[in-house]
Amino acid sequence: MLLRKMTAVDFQHFWPVFQGVIAAQDSYAFAPDMTLQQGWQLWGELPLQTWVAEEDGELLGSYFLKANAAGPGSHVANCGYMVAPAARGRGIAAAMCEHSQQQAREAGFLAMQFNSVVASNTVAVALWQKLGFAIVGRVPLAYRHREHGLVDILVMHKPLA
Amino acid sequence: MLLRKMTAVDFQHFWPVFQGVIAAQDSYAFAPDMTLQQGWQLWGELPLQTWVAEEDGELLGSYFLKANAAGPGSHVANCGYMVAPAARGRGIAAAMCEHSQQQAREAGFLAMQFNSVVASNTVAVALWQKLGFAIVGRVPLAYRHREHGLVDILVMHKPLA
Repeated sequence: MLLRKMTAVDFQHFWPVFQGVIAAQDSYAFAPDMTLQQGWQLWGELPLQTWVAEEDGELLGSYFLKANAAGPGSHVANCGYMVAPAARGRGIAAAMCEHSQQQAREAGFLAMQFNSVVASNTVAVALWQKLGFAIVGRVPLAYRHREHGLVDILVMHKPLA
Repeated sequence: MLLRKMTAVDFQHFWPVFQGVIAAQDSYAFAPDMTLQQGWQLWGELPLQTWVAEEDGELLGSYFLKANAAGPGSHVANCGYMVAPAARGRGIAAAMCEHSQQQAREAGFLAMQFNSVVASNTVAVALWQKLGFAIVGRVPLAYRHREHGLVDILVMHKPLA
């Protein structure tokens, strides 16, 4: 598996995965009906870096890395990860998360923060904990899950020093 | 004291207060060197509503109200408040916060969340608690305070039902 920077053309190929993830409304607080152009702006243009995981010409996953806040909060990184349904369970999210931590360190970030990990997404929560992230907050009923209704979100954090 | 919608011209008048608050780097995770135009975009254009507190032609404070996240997170409101130094200690932040909760309720929001209350800003933390907000998270060292160095930020939350 190769990790390389994502291009706008990659995002067009990745769009069915991206659209599936946001339409599911069980992990991201993104508008579920956004256009490909809005998606690329959010995922590929606004962040500091956007990467894609590729194997045999297939795009297995993608992540972005950006500052979580401006000015006095700009030393904390934030990332989002997506894995293609067919590629799940193969450690791709873990590989991307490890890679993103290294990229964040190299860019000078001191920590990484996830603002909105959906509590019912237990696979993700367990993975981030395994990778060293701590749950530092729990916001009650802040996510409207398509199946479960209102569920909590978790704030997760890891120092990168 | 009158609360009314803020205009771009109001923001020009309010700019010295706004600039002083962000330059102090003790409360907001905003770029401390942003321009007036960037400030207005962030404070006045991007949010759903922006209000100003006025008395005898003086602008005493301002706040914005917006959704804290998109799609499945869009039922949670987020606000930011600023009070002119000369007007502090007169209950203006409290009045604006109460007003913002009512506006948020009328706009259909179910809760209000503050993502980044600087822990060393004990006056603000105590005020939000008095107004019914609970501390639901604490992110270690996520704010670079101009005087104190790295300090924690608090996530605070109040149901609006």
